Amino acid sequence: MLTPQRIEAFSDGVFAIVITLLILEIKVPSLPEHVSSSDLFTKLFTLGPKLLSYVLSFLVIGVYWIAHHFTFHQIRRADRQLLIFNLLFLMSISFIPFPAALLGEYPHTQTAVMVYGFALLMTGITFNLIWWHASRNHRLIDSQTPLHVIRNSWKGRFVPLICYLIGMGLSFVHVYLTIAIYIIVPLYYLTVRTPSESK
Amino acid sequence: MLTPQRIEAFSDGVFAIVITLLILEIKVPSLPEHVSSSDLFTKLFTLGPKLLSYVLSFLVIGVYWIAHHFTFHQIRRADRQLLIFNLLFLMSISFIPFPAALLGEYPHTQTAVMVYGFALLMTGITFNLIWWHASRNHRLIDSQTPLHVIRNSWKGRFVPLICYLIGMGLSFVHVYLTIAIYIIVPLYYLTVRTPSESK
Amino acid sequence: MLTPQRIEAFSDGVFAIVITLLILEIKVPSLPEHVSSSDLFTKLFTLGPKLLSYVLSFLVIGVYWIAHHFTFHQIRRADRQLLIFNLLFLMSISFIPFPAALLGEYPHTQTAVMVYGFALLMTGITFNLIWWHASRNHRLIDSQTPLHVIRNSWKGRFVPLICYLIGMGLSFVHVYLTIAIYIIVPLYYLTVRTPSESK
Amino acid sequence: MLTPQRIEAFSDGVFAIVITLLILEIKVPSLPEHVSSSDLFTKLFTLGPKLLSYVLSFLVIGVYWIAHHFTFHQIRRADRQLLIFNLLFLMSISFIPFPAALLGEYPHTQTAVMVYGFALLMTGITFNLIWWHASRNHRLIDSQTPLHVIRNSWKGRFVPLICYLIGMGLSFVHVYLTIAIYIIVPLYYLTVRTPSESK
Repeated sequence: MLTPQRIEAFSDGVFAIVITLLILEIKVPSLPEHVSSSDLFTKLFTLGPKLLSYVLSFLVIGVYWIAHHFTFHQIRRADRQLLIFNLLFLMSISFIPFPAALLGEYPHTQTAVMVYGFALLMTGITFNLIWWHASRNHRLIDSQTPLHVIRNSWKGRFVPLICYLIGMGLSFVHVYLTIAIYIIVPLYYLTVRTPSESK
Repeated sequence: MLTPQRIEAFSDGVFAIVITLLILEIKVPSLPEHVSSSDLFTKLFTLGPKLLSYVLSFLVIGVYWIAHHFTFHQIRRADRQLLIFNLLFLMSISFIPFPAALLGEYPHTQTAVMVYGFALLMTGITFNLIWWHASRNHRLIDSQTPLHVIRNSWKGRFVPLICYLIGMGLSFVHVYLTIAIYIIVPLYYLTVRTPSESK
Repeated sequence: MLTPQRIEAFSDGVFAIVITLLILEIKVPSLPEHVSSSDLFTKLFTLGPKLLSYVLSFLVIGVYWIAHHFTFHQIRRADRQLLIFNLLFLMSISFIPFPAALLGEYPHTQTAVMVYGFALLMTGITFNLIWWHASRNHRLIDSQTPLHVIRNSWKGRFVPLICYLIGMGLSFVHVYLTIAIYIIVPLYYLTVRTPSESK
Repeated sequence: MLTPQRIEAFSDGVFAIVITLLILEIKVPSLPEHVSSSDLFTKLFTLGPKLLSYVLSFLVIGVYWIAHHFTFHQIRRADRQLLIFNLLFLMSISFIPFPAALLGEYPHTQTAVMVYGFALLMTGITFNLIWWHASRNHRLIDSQTPLHVIRNSWKGRFVPLICYLIGMGLSFVHVYLTIAIYIIVPLYYLTVRTPSESK
């Protein structure tokens, strides 16, 4: 069987590639060959939303890389379902460059923020499936792990999803509120407490 | 000589990169700058076939990653032919983004489903070459492996190829039948039994 | 907690990907199908600035890969801030393909050389944040490291940043002076002395 | 100092990425949305040269991956020059997707085959620099390695370069002769004997 270490190494590869591919979505603007420096400068400002989407997506993937590591740190065995759930999670992570490009291109549309939110939800849900499968009845984790520790671990896993849902709802008020929430959540988990981090 | 572990690590790198590059084939639609959210939403539906092709190709590569691991788990030594067959297999895997993009762009054409099927056949055949070379006369595997285990292992390796051939034949009836078979085969092997998995 | 070894391995993956993605920014020129060989030859010369930007960016990332390794070689423990600063550093490194493409496309504009310089500064500053955090009060490094060694290590970390700032200032005279400085700095550190290299 | 193992692992990452990026240069042809299957089929034949260039470049990089491993298998220590020469070699390898795309797009031009040949020469020369530096006076290799073994190892390293030079010369007769030689050389080293392979 594939060991947790091997699955984790493969996942790390996918994380490193996705996080690096994001920049390919920011294309250099096409301008006349002998454009003046100030015209180019002005033009670069229109890349602002793409840059913001780049930084946001980089942070989201970075936080999940950390959280994925903490989760696999507790997993002792692997089985087929773990492989499947992890593959679905990696599919969600690999998908992020698309909604990132969409949000960078059409940041003022509810459609783009909703698609981005959908990707965040898919990533969060598949990530939680991994832990749900592994921790239920101590199936793949250390049998000595106290139940209350497992129960507590779920808090940090649901709160971001609820935040994203609230953020998506706020898009009916203004899409910038949604984007603000998308930015705050990974920043919080990066600087304060990573989901699934053991104390 | 290159060890099986080293070949496997290199192959894992290629798997991780191909599976992550797939998303680059789904491009954000080009629309007027101040497109309305609902126009963008409608436009996104035309990406349906590309998304399906993305998920399909992700699963195919994911299943082969698992199967590749199980195969190399049984290989004890490496020789030049193993290197060559593995390189041909990796070439087939690395090729998949092209038929995936073709199928996503022209899903209604027999040409696209045939090219995709050809890529699946090439991948399956080169994958079987690895195992044929390694297992024949116990050349690169544990000499204690019973013959009936090796013989049984071939079933799971030929059935998907026969399914793909039948699927390609069905494209003369309707291409959607072919696509349905392309989807069912990896789903079956992902959820039920991976080719070459030891019991 | 994530160990320094694991953070380093992940960083190595990002380095390898970014350094390899750079070539994707050099696109084959679009010419009539039956272009003559000499017309193609002439056209290739217009790729000169892109090629120079490719080589420059390759060297910059290569030098940082070496320097990153030397830095992590001295780090014994990891904490959350190290993770965050390393992630910010990787974001700066992953960002380089964009200013590289910009400089290759518009090498005669002050805007392009300034954006490239900005990326170099960001990379240098986030790289120094890692070492500042790790070495301060021997927080994450060997407690036996003499203070004067740490103090000396800062020289090699600030000089390139000052060079880049001077180079950016020289862009008001001529952008080619700036580009010359951008080329000399990594060449110097590649051939003579890597920043943070232990004696 | 960076160990040979670490340099090799980083190089493996670059190899895996370059070999996988090659497919991105084969773009799906742009056709009217409801193109007939037979029109698409006809159009795909125009991709022939790109496919050939893909397979050729895949084999070249694959052969160098094997040869690089054999070389580093003999290297015991690392120094700055090894790092620099290896970085130059990786730059040459990472550069290959560009001449590969050029050859696939303009296979009938002497310019494209010459640029491809130039990339092959650069790769071969920088690869030989690594071995020249490491083996001279047994600088970085096992001091017990007999001199005649080192001397013999040079044959397999110069013959391909001479073949490429002859091939480039033959482009004045017909470019297809050059391409034939580019194909035969890696095929020979893949199937018969890898440069630098120990007996």
